[in-house]
Amino acid sequence: MTTSPSKHLETFPNPRPGREYQIHFEAPEFTCLCPKTGQPDFATIRIRYAPADLCVELKSLKLYLWSFRDEGHFHEDVTNRLLDDLVAATSPRWMEVVGDFYVRGGIHTVVTVRHGAVPPP
Amino acid sequence: MTTSPSKHLETFPNPRPGREYQIHFEAPEFTCLCPKTGQPDFATIRIRYAPADLCVELKSLKLYLWSFRDEGHFHEDVTNRLLDDLVAATSPRWMEVVGDFYVRGGIHTVVTVRHGAVPPP
Amino acid sequence: MTTSPSKHLETFPNPRPGREYQIHFEAPEFTCLCPKTGQPDFATIRIRYAPADLCVELKSLKLYLWSFRDEGHFHEDVTNRLLDDLVAATSPRWMEVVGDFYVRGGIHTVVTVRHGAVPPP
Amino acid sequence: MTTSPSKHLETFPNPRPGREYQIHFEAPEFTCLCPKTGQPDFATIRIRYAPADLCVELKSLKLYLWSFRDEGHFHEDVTNRLLDDLVAATSPRWMEVVGDFYVRGGIHTVVTVRHGAVPPP
Amino acid sequence: MTTSPSKHLETFPNPRPGREYQIHFEAPEFTCLCPKTGQPDFATIRIRYAPADLCVELKSLKLYLWSFRDEGHFHEDVTNRLLDDLVAATSPRWMEVVGDFYVRGGIHTVVTVRHGAVPPP
Amino acid sequence: MTTSPSKHLETFPNPRPGREYQIHFEAPEFTCLCPKTGQPDFATIRIRYAPADLCVELKSLKLYLWSFRDEGHFHEDVTNRLLDDLVAATSPRWMEVVGDFYVRGGIHTVVTVRHGAVPPP
Amino acid sequence: MTTSPSKHLETFPNPRPGREYQIHFEAPEFTCLCPKTGQPDFATIRIRYAPADLCVELKSLKLYLWSFRDEGHFHEDVTNRLLDDLVAATSPRWMEVVGDFYVRGGIHTVVTVRHGAVPPP
Amino acid sequence: MTTSPSKHLETFPNPRPGREYQIHFEAPEFTCLCPKTGQPDFATIRIRYAPADLCVELKSLKLYLWSFRDEGHFHEDVTNRLLDDLVAATSPRWMEVVGDFYVRGGIHTVVTVRHGAVPPP
Amino acid sequence: MTTSPSKHLETFPNPRPGREYQIHFEAPEFTCLCPKTGQPDFATIRIRYAPADLCVELKSLKLYLWSFRDEGHFHEDVTNRLLDDLVAATSPRWMEVVGDFYVRGGIHTVVTVRHGAVPPP
Amino acid sequence: MTTSPSKHLETFPNPRPGREYQIHFEAPEFTCLCPKTGQPDFATIRIRYAPADLCVELKSLKLYLWSFRDEGHFHEDVTNRLLDDLVAATSPRWMEVVGDFYVRGGIHTVVTVRHGAVPPP
Repeated sequence: MTTSPSKHLETFPNPRPGREYQIHFEAPEFTCLCPKTGQPDFATIRIRYAPADLCVELKSLKLYLWSFRDEGHFHEDVTNRLLDDLVAATSPRWMEVVGDFYVRGGIHTVVTVRHGAVPPP
Repeated sequence: MTTSPSKHLETFPNPRPGREYQIHFEAPEFTCLCPKTGQPDFATIRIRYAPADLCVELKSLKLYLWSFRDEGHFHEDVTNRLLDDLVAATSPRWMEVVGDFYVRGGIHTVVTVRHGAVPPP
Repeated sequence: MTTSPSKHLETFPNPRPGREYQIHFEAPEFTCLCPKTGQPDFATIRIRYAPADLCVELKSLKLYLWSFRDEGHFHEDVTNRLLDDLVAATSPRWMEVVGDFYVRGGIHTVVTVRHGAVPPP
Repeated sequence: MTTSPSKHLETFPNPRPGREYQIHFEAPEFTCLCPKTGQPDFATIRIRYAPADLCVELKSLKLYLWSFRDEGHFHEDVTNRLLDDLVAATSPRWMEVVGDFYVRGGIHTVVTVRHGAVPPP
Repeated sequence: MTTSPSKHLETFPNPRPGREYQIHFEAPEFTCLCPKTGQPDFATIRIRYAPADLCVELKSLKLYLWSFRDEGHFHEDVTNRLLDDLVAATSPRWMEVVGDFYVRGGIHTVVTVRHGAVPPP
Repeated sequence: MTTSPSKHLETFPNPRPGREYQIHFEAPEFTCLCPKTGQPDFATIRIRYAPADLCVELKSLKLYLWSFRDEGHFHEDVTNRLLDDLVAATSPRWMEVVGDFYVRGGIHTVVTVRHGAVPPP
Repeated sequence: MTTSPSKHLETFPNPRPGREYQIHFEAPEFTCLCPKTGQPDFATIRIRYAPADLCVELKSLKLYLWSFRDEGHFHEDVTNRLLDDLVAATSPRWMEVVGDFYVRGGIHTVVTVRHGAVPPP
Repeated sequence: MTTSPSKHLETFPNPRPGREYQIHFEAPEFTCLCPKTGQPDFATIRIRYAPADLCVELKSLKLYLWSFRDEGHFHEDVTNRLLDDLVAATSPRWMEVVGDFYVRGGIHTVVTVRHGAVPPP
Repeated sequence: MTTSPSKHLETFPNPRPGREYQIHFEAPEFTCLCPKTGQPDFATIRIRYAPADLCVELKSLKLYLWSFRDEGHFHEDVTNRLLDDLVAATSPRWMEVVGDFYVRGGIHTVVTVRHGAVPPP
Repeated sequence: MTTSPSKHLETFPNPRPGREYQIHFEAPEFTCLCPKTGQPDFATIRIRYAPADLCVELKSLKLYLWSFRDEGHFHEDVTNRLLDDLVAATSPRWMEVVGDFYVRGGIHTVVTVRHGAVPPP
């Protein structure tokens, strides 16, 4: 059973479209490349959102995150890109994406981007 | 003394119906099946609610959670279902149900659903 | 020096009655009996309050909590009872009592009751 | 279903008497009385043993620990007593009992007693 | 892609049969039934072993652990059973199996069984 | 180089009087005496404040806290006293003092007092 | 490849200037000198900000923090100075700088300064 | 009920003189003075011992530790002194005393002294 | 400044060849591919060794670990391979390599391999 | 009161030269320079030793560690150097020095060096 990384995010119909509720994913296995040096970067990606009509399918989310493995991206840019793609695919009520990157130059960087009116965790 | 799983939730009269107060249950022994693959899923279920006239009886809650053991449910769906059943049985002032599922595909999923005006923890 | 458990709560005059401030007690040594089975239950009791004219005296609080040792009480009921007694004895600006009970049937139960306008911790 | 505390420890035949293996119990719900002041003491009891022909039955262990609730015992004495009773009931290859008591006079006390050649945890 | 639980453990040839080294698995998703009451029990299973000629295949281990889901087993017995089956399938240099069970009757039980000369972790 | 405890709090001019900002001190080495029994009490003192024209000088704060070592004070009273003295010395925009005392009679006590409009931590 | 400390902060254009989002840096490798005694001080610096048109470049931030190594600064002053420099370089929507200093005289000091309307973490 | 600090350690007969077992005390409320500067020092004292014919009485241990409050002692010296006094009072099979002192000059100091053949914790 | 992954491990002369001492590296940014499915695997690699004449150069170690990024390896095999390569490059007195892999199929796997007489950590 | 860094370690006579006991220092405020790039490195230094005739004086130890601030040293070399200097100054029964360095290139390095027969912690 082989699968390939893909930028395509699959969705399924929200089982309770009339209720505002929250889904949280924590994905500690994210890696891409530094666009300046070509060296690998690593991050934990945390996603919180309230689905409207569509939910993100879990296996396609795994493949989507995998698809960044051989691409060059800056921290600030890739976190915004993840939010843009996920919002385009699911049109959520609101969504938050956090990119929590490993230490570089003695500094630990976390980027938090939001779409819509995101409540506190 | 043998007991059997049951979808029936027993209740008892709230000892202080005139006061808004909060009951929190944490049940780390929840398991059901994945409806696609038939494989077992595991979760910790956390319930917070403010009783109106009725409280959930603890032993029936244990049996109710056990009753999902051989049933197939998606994460998003079963968490909403738990809330629906608990609200139907107790008509609370407000209620929150959290399904905190074990890692699948390298991703940890938590679903949070609410009924009524739920205050922060 | 022998002391006996007592339902009587002693108080002393609040040293700063004009200022709203907060006192927090954590008492992990609470035990009573299950009224159905007669078996012992255990809990940590947490009390937060803002005194008005009177403060709870610490030693009498210890004896008061001890006085429940041989009595049968349900979780929801005894936590409300503690609040009622403490409010009756001290007429505080506000008060919160939390009963954090040990696991029964695989489920951990926490009951939180409040009197007046309780601010977040 | 009411049960009563009892000093009687029930046992069942060890399912693998030919193999030396280890069973560990942690019981955080132990309480007895101070023989000098009559005030309640609290402890977590930890038991490790290697069964020979007999294993301790879990429910009778619970009732046995409960049976100390209304008795006066010093810390050092009751921990030795627990070991003596458990050894008498099961004749284990070896056994360790730890009484981890709550703070008294600003001091936290832990008593560890052993029977036979107890290996490190 | 549906898989079914199976008592069959698959193996693959040890890539370094001449070197004594250690493999550790932690499986927090184990459940079986209590043979007395039929109620579900839950445990984390921890396995450490030094392979000789054969290694345990990870996916078959998952299915093997799943196969206990509908079976009745006592704590002491099932932990010994897991060791017996894993030793029979792989003939390791040494092996340790730990069954770390959820609280029952206020007591947390951990059973540790070993085959051969097991070094400290 | 010997220094003596002193109730005098030294201050220095706030380097940014036009900006509202926050200073937090945590001092785990506070001790005084129980006014009833003469026995020593211990606490961690936590201070948060927003300076106006004056900041507390760190070394004089250490000596000030030391000056309570041989004095008798109740928990509720000494925490209010610390706030009163610090407010008198620095006239801050707002200030919070927390007295987090060691366990007495099995109960852990924390007293929180505030001056002005204190924001959450 | 040798680099030198520098007070110059480099920036790059914000990749999503139209979206308010948050960047958090944690830098545990900050040291400067005490202006009174000449002895070294150590701190963890935490920076949170929402970029407007410009983002702080990570490597220049590392060199900027390094540039304080041989300079004398009081805790309150240096934390304000870091905020002033970072605001001057990037004109953010809002920014928070926290200086979390090591224990001196038994007291742990944390200074928090803000520019603009900083939301909770 | 007032008590005074005293260097006298009371003992009571070991309830199981024929068995080697271990008693552990953790006392976080120890303070004395620096003999050079007169400033207060603070430590947590940890004592482990195996009683022979005599056990240390808990209340007298509290008073004994309190008796150092107004005395000047170096870290290395006072920890050895505690061991000497406790050994003189109880003639144990073995004993260990640990003095875990608060940070001074950015350095955390722990002194461990032993009498007889002390086994690992 | 671009660097490329390389299987070549650089070394430098041990500054104290006559003393047996220990170097420990923890590298949480290791990723390779599953040889069966082509999907990425992630691990933290921990290395402990006592150098003889040569030490591993830190930057070449980073590049060496990076060089596995696009290669397929089983858990057991790659951990042994890391040890073999590091031993070949440095001929240490002894060495231990731990591969601590992320959860797959609900199971967390840790592989520990050793060369020579490795002391406990 | 200004002090200057110095490589001179002061000592004082061991108060119990006839007893083998252990002193442990943890100093999280160590920094030196990378000899290749000139950039600062940071570490926590942990020292354990059994004094013979001499003990390290705490304030001179602080100044000694400070004296490395402007010097270039490799991780492996500086940790050995610290041990050599401390052994030369105090001729201990045994001594261990641990250099626990901050992350560089995604890798956390810890160097442990020993003199004499060092027992486990």
